[in-house]
Amino acid sequence: MNAPEPRYDTALPLSGSRFTAVYRIAAESPAAAEEAARALVVEQTIEFPAELVGGTIAREVVARVESLEEIEPGVYTTELSFATELVGGELTQLLNVFFGNSSLLPSVRLLRIGLGPELARRFPGPRYGVAGLRQVLGAPAGPLLSTALKPLGLGPEELAAMAYRLALGGVQLIKDDHGLADQAFAPFEARLEAVTAAVARAERESGLKAVYAPNVTAPGEETLRRARLARAAGAGAVMVAPGLVGFDRMERLAREVGLLVLSHPAFLGGFVPKGDGGISHYALFGQLQRLAGADAVIFPNYGGRFAFSREECAEINAGLKDELAGLAPALPAPGGGMSLERVPEMRELYGDDLIFLIGGALHRRGPDLTENARYFRRLAAGAE
Amino acid sequence: MNAPEPRYDTALPLSGSRFTAVYRIAAESPAAAEEAARALVVEQTIEFPAELVGGTIAREVVARVESLEEIEPGVYTTELSFATELVGGELTQLLNVFFGNSSLLPSVRLLRIGLGPELARRFPGPRYGVAGLRQVLGAPAGPLLSTALKPLGLGPEELAAMAYRLALGGVQLIKDDHGLADQAFAPFEARLEAVTAAVARAERESGLKAVYAPNVTAPGEETLRRARLARAAGAGAVMVAPGLVGFDRMERLAREVGLLVLSHPAFLGGFVPKGDGGISHYALFGQLQRLAGADAVIFPNYGGRFAFSREECAEINAGLKDELAGLAPALPAPGGGMSLERVPEMRELYGDDLIFLIGGALHRRGPDLTENARYFRRLAAGAE
Repeated sequence: MNAPEPRYDTALPLSGSRFTAVYRIAAESPAAAEEAARALVVEQTIEFPAELVGGTIAREVVARVESLEEIEPGVYTTELSFATELVGGELTQLLNVFFGNSSLLPSVRLLRIGLGPELARRFPGPRYGVAGLRQVLGAPAGPLLSTALKPLGLGPEELAAMAYRLALGGVQLIKDDHGLADQAFAPFEARLEAVTAAVARAERESGLKAVYAPNVTAPGEETLRRARLARAAGAGAVMVAPGLVGFDRMERLAREVGLLVLSHPAFLGGFVPKGDGGISHYALFGQLQRLAGADAVIFPNYGGRFAFSREECAEINAGLKDELAGLAPALPAPGGGMSLERVPEMRELYGDDLIFLIGGALHRRGPDLTENARYFRRLAAGAE
Repeated sequence: MNAPEPRYDTALPLSGSRFTAVYRIAAESPAAAEEAARALVVEQTIEFPAELVGGTIAREVVARVESLEEIEPGVYTTELSFATELVGGELTQLLNVFFGNSSLLPSVRLLRIGLGPELARRFPGPRYGVAGLRQVLGAPAGPLLSTALKPLGLGPEELAAMAYRLALGGVQLIKDDHGLADQAFAPFEARLEAVTAAVARAERESGLKAVYAPNVTAPGEETLRRARLARAAGAGAVMVAPGLVGFDRMERLAREVGLLVLSHPAFLGGFVPKGDGGISHYALFGQLQRLAGADAVIFPNYGGRFAFSREECAEINAGLKDELAGLAPALPAPGGGMSLERVPEMRELYGDDLIFLIGGALHRRGPDLTENARYFRRLAAGAE
């Protein structure tokens, strides 16, 4: 067979607007890294024999290798740029361009994303962010306090009684356990009504501001319907797991419903393998969450029962707060088997723009949840 | 502090109906494995200090370790069972129970799922499956043929002309490239109309049955809206990437729209790390896809440009076809840098219930796509 002629081109002129992503590539030599980067620009765009495309497709639709650098022996970083037109304004397709097929390449890790001004307009990020969330909670400075309603099996009235005691003690953000969906023992609507009323009562009695974040992770439009119910009931916030419902559904929640959005990491863990591949903690729990509108992001704290390292948690904190095309920064909400005593050390790592998420430890301290919450609040304020 | 009294129980009697999952645990000793299994039953259910719950919550809401076995030094498998009531009938919550928080534990891998009769009624699986898909395509036996419309950048008329030539040559399942969304160069509706008409024309002229599977991966309800448009246009199938839109949206597509559902692996790769953790190929590309209604599942074939092994692909094939609470089996559609010459070897691994998905290689063979498709069809039938 002779060398083929390019057979495919597009008639459409592109705008020249581009966005970027940085990947880490494991490769045995500079030549292998270059080959891998050249394969990646095709994989993430045309997924087609490069020799058969010409003109605009070859020059602009195929991604471009903007840089390739060896950062340690056998490890490279490469920045690619992509035509904004590839996205068509849809978050699903933007994620597909960033990491669709390349998620299947074990030697490639998505390290960070870069958004041009067009994408930042289309995906404006957190509606509240750090400043807005502080405003809603009337807490201009200092770490914030959060806990979860659990265990699974309790009914709406029991969960509401628990929420009341916690809010009375000064817990500012009271969320559902992520396992609370719409089970017979605690149906969503009954739970929403009972807990929202209980939190409002505690607020009136204590003068301390608190919001309830019901878990709206659910199939299809039910996520949106439940979030609208939460708004109507006056819950103030919602929690959703983008790993289960897709990042685009969280983005819609943020844009259409208008409540604070708290992101939960359930089903996302596959993306952060210990070896090569996957998505960096910086991008997965930081940048992508802001892109999809999360105001606060739950993730496993280092030193708890999960396996994130201190360095990975610092990365997440940076991914939530670093400049990203003007999108608002979001709050880290590290949790997962934390003890109350770790509060000072965490404050040092994350800074004051931080939500302490303490679950079981708050119950382990003793049966008086209001007193436990007060202790937790004093600790968080650095007074104990 | 004295040993605490259990403080929490539920008033609700449970039915006793349970479902199961098997996990692989990496642990240094049998005692460590037992501890990990005991932690897992809590992690996947109450996520709460076990000593503080009693009664029904302790006995039935917390998962149960049904077995724990060392399969090789340092590697264990454990079967857990869960109360069906934990799910509340929602696929998002079922996935959360199977692998929500445990996705964040790098030493735990979800190996396979088991469904009780209640869950199998609620999630009936593929609407068509192997037998139904064969009936739609009028192909009672032998491997089936598929390819993708690409490269990105072509317009609706060019994609339609390509589809026409491919269908004329006998390609039975013509799908969009997964990067085709709703971009200005090939808007969804214009593409749907042009390609569907072209495939129908080829069918009339050749007498060979073919269907078009437009990519309906899109934000929110747009997925469903596009699938309904596809049905109205007579496309016959749709393609969706559950990694991008969530498995529950694919399940809705299968249940509500009624077309053949083809699943694409974009953004799912994070779940199959090379080391510990993640989800097995058997469960991720086999069982979970059927649970969510896929009739055919695209994944990277071994020996192509991705890194799945021959053994992992055999696992996927088994996960698509093994008995699973009566759910229909689904078809494997291995692709990803395949060459035409590998057809016989693949047929040996996957058997005849197989969709050959060949992309670039079909174009590399030469400019006459109809002739290339005919060659491919003869190869697949074992005649060349």
